[in-house]
Amino acid sequence: MIAEVERRLGPKAVLTDPADLAPWLSDWRGRVHGQSDALLAPGSTAEVAEIVRLAGEYRVPLVPQGGNTGMAAGATPPADGSALLLSLRRMSRIRTMDSASRTAIAEAGVILETLHDRAGEIGMRFPLTLGARGSCTIGGLVSTNAGGTQVLRFGTMRALVAGVEAVLPDGSIHDGLSGLKKDNRGYSLDQLLIGAEGTLGIVTAAALRLVPAVAARTVAWAGVESPVQALALLRFLEARTGAVEGFELVPQDSLDLVLKHVPGTRPPLDGAHAWHALVEATTADRQHDLAGEVERLFAAAVDQGIIGDAVIAANEAQAEALWKIRDTISEAERAEGLTLAHDISVPVDAMPGFILHAAAEVEAAYPGTVASGFGHLGDGNIHFHVRAGARTAGDWYDAEGKAITRLVDDLVTAAGGSISAEHGIGQLKREELARLAPPGRIAALRAIKRGLDPLGIMNPGKLVP
Amino acid sequence: MIAEVERRLGPKAVLTDPADLAPWLSDWRGRVHGQSDALLAPGSTAEVAEIVRLAGEYRVPLVPQGGNTGMAAGATPPADGSALLLSLRRMSRIRTMDSASRTAIAEAGVILETLHDRAGEIGMRFPLTLGARGSCTIGGLVSTNAGGTQVLRFGTMRALVAGVEAVLPDGSIHDGLSGLKKDNRGYSLDQLLIGAEGTLGIVTAAALRLVPAVAARTVAWAGVESPVQALALLRFLEARTGAVEGFELVPQDSLDLVLKHVPGTRPPLDGAHAWHALVEATTADRQHDLAGEVERLFAAAVDQGIIGDAVIAANEAQAEALWKIRDTISEAERAEGLTLAHDISVPVDAMPGFILHAAAEVEAAYPGTVASGFGHLGDGNIHFHVRAGARTAGDWYDAEGKAITRLVDDLVTAAGGSISAEHGIGQLKREELARLAPPGRIAALRAIKRGLDPLGIMNPGKLVP
Repeated sequence: MIAEVERRLGPKAVLTDPADLAPWLSDWRGRVHGQSDALLAPGSTAEVAEIVRLAGEYRVPLVPQGGNTGMAAGATPPADGSALLLSLRRMSRIRTMDSASRTAIAEAGVILETLHDRAGEIGMRFPLTLGARGSCTIGGLVSTNAGGTQVLRFGTMRALVAGVEAVLPDGSIHDGLSGLKKDNRGYSLDQLLIGAEGTLGIVTAAALRLVPAVAARTVAWAGVESPVQALALLRFLEARTGAVEGFELVPQDSLDLVLKHVPGTRPPLDGAHAWHALVEATTADRQHDLAGEVERLFAAAVDQGIIGDAVIAANEAQAEALWKIRDTISEAERAEGLTLAHDISVPVDAMPGFILHAAAEVEAAYPGTVASGFGHLGDGNIHFHVRAGARTAGDWYDAEGKAITRLVDDLVTAAGGSISAEHGIGQLKREELARLAPPGRIAALRAIKRGLDPLGIMNPGKLVP
Repeated sequence: MIAEVERRLGPKAVLTDPADLAPWLSDWRGRVHGQSDALLAPGSTAEVAEIVRLAGEYRVPLVPQGGNTGMAAGATPPADGSALLLSLRRMSRIRTMDSASRTAIAEAGVILETLHDRAGEIGMRFPLTLGARGSCTIGGLVSTNAGGTQVLRFGTMRALVAGVEAVLPDGSIHDGLSGLKKDNRGYSLDQLLIGAEGTLGIVTAAALRLVPAVAARTVAWAGVESPVQALALLRFLEARTGAVEGFELVPQDSLDLVLKHVPGTRPPLDGAHAWHALVEATTADRQHDLAGEVERLFAAAVDQGIIGDAVIAANEAQAEALWKIRDTISEAERAEGLTLAHDISVPVDAMPGFILHAAAEVEAAYPGTVASGFGHLGDGNIHFHVRAGARTAGDWYDAEGKAITRLVDDLVTAAGGSISAEHGIGQLKREELARLAPPGRIAALRAIKRGLDPLGIMNPGKLVP
């Protein structure tokens, strides 16, 4: 098959040198390692279709890959070398970008930051961002239904994708790029492909919604007594303004770690608070006095006893300093010792109770560990991290770590939540999904997969339990 | 099977008297007639699951039905009487309604107007409405991905549903009601069930997004030279305010018919205009001077030559009078003679050209007919109607009408549009979907259907070509 692809698409479309392949055979965190004889790099949708048809003919599975920044090893090939890598990075054209219709059509290999920049040039913004923005690609963002820090206001990729172009497992091209606002011609293949992790087809391009560029932003930090109080602040703000687009919860414990390990950070507030909320508000309207509005709202929240104390960044440097605390929590935790991360969600209203209850359960079951939740409270999505405390052995992850993860996943499931909020299932969470999803759901996932990919050539071993 | 259902669920759950069944055997417009031996009326999700399991056992297909107001005969049973009707109307509880989380959980049988009223009682609004609001149900709205006149701002049901509860074809219950904002545990069954017209499962309840109640609305009417100019007005407004939630296009020809046939209507503007735009803006903020804002924007649009003339309703009675013109176009057309309706969409930017081009094509191919488009320009969704002119024979629909519809559908498809914007496929558009959808899409729809409903017990003969 490799020779046939090269014969049809030329040498640019095939890499076989082990040195070229190496960076793409392991997942981003270096935890999962695969093998493959070649990386195929088509330059157009027609070439992707050609490769998919050949894959069906030769019965060779394909593992699609964008920036290879996934957190669940969904783009890492199987260890037995049975699959070929399919990189979409050569498909990196922004086909259209229009401020009137507020839509961009970007190919799968476009890097998120490039899209941000190009949208900015016409006074618009693509309102989704995340840490890997300098290397993650549109195809991967669509295929993992990526989230990030602006979901509160704009939703995940599912809400930002107006249409998908993809090559289906039979080699046919699904063209949903016209991005119709009203279209009821049967099941939404667009929505089915979003978050399918390449198991139902290869996303080659997407029509994406844009919003007007940010004219001003205001960042604030509030001290609160508990997650319950943080949620009360969120509801207070939401009822009075549509401008809040980030609402991050930070426990004092996380703040302490950041202050200890990250140079140049300092406490945002003078007083002591058990919990903190980082709030970002933005406006696209130059006439809107956002800073004044946020100031009035926070003053009212203090007056009404919803929060005890707060500070509003007076300038961009202060705003950056507040965000730096939030963004370096994981880094500080790593400096402190072993940390087990869980990307989970529960219904927003249940989140405050869940954080306290789950932390207590984990710490009681595994004495010496320290559990805490931080992150996107407004989305019901926190990063629930468990630190090993005095334990330092490298096999902690595989030994006690797995048991702790099962406990956390049990608690999340009991709370009606999701064991994968924004990172997907990939290879790493497949077992847990198999263990915890209702049998009817597992049967449905398998039936859809089998129905659309009867030959099993689309990213096998991922997502579907 | 009927006896078994009655034995297990009691007599309340089974109607077999032909007089009781009659209203549910034909579609709302009385064009399609079916047969069935019984109407099953479960009172809970568990009872629906019981019925679905029995249907699998007895191999008896089910035709789910809500208010029976569909426009594509998607809820009408087959003529051979092989299926049983499954009415969700007894499941009419609003389980929760919460202004803080802005969510309601409504059972499938809840009538849209009831939901509107109940949301209003707590200062909220469910922002989707349509003509049948007094009898259509939540389950039907979800299953047809209903649209309406507020899609421009709030989207179709697909954007308003936070989660779905449904009984899958194997009798298992899918519970997506926790409405997680971030959840990446594989393919979105919620999104797959939205718009599936009951062919993949029975929707029993939905978690729905609410928005704050309307504090004020402003309705305006503008005269324009062409649909191109109407679109320019829309873009002008959208770039300057987020308050526009309705933007309806009305040709002079439709206005003339309304003035001729509908008592109590009069021209909104003094001058003559070939086209008109009806604009509705709303705000949830009592402090927002919406009328003033709209007035300034329209004055600027006149100054900049975007529109020639406009009037802003000075009060609710005037606003109602403007909407009455839009809402009685179909009625006026019926009074004038035979009219063939097409519910279609094309990309918004292509719409102005499409309307003029398609009307010219139809009128040239069928001399004497009068074709015109009116409706939701902002969604790229117009009702493209063709009047028979002097032709009056009742068989016009079946004879020339079918050929005209094929021509319109060809033009829509060539323009990258949809032959069903908001009414769905049901029975009435299945042939056209089979004729015009790409083979890969048809294969995908069939594979999903076969995969999830291998026994074919879920609303057979609908949607899937």
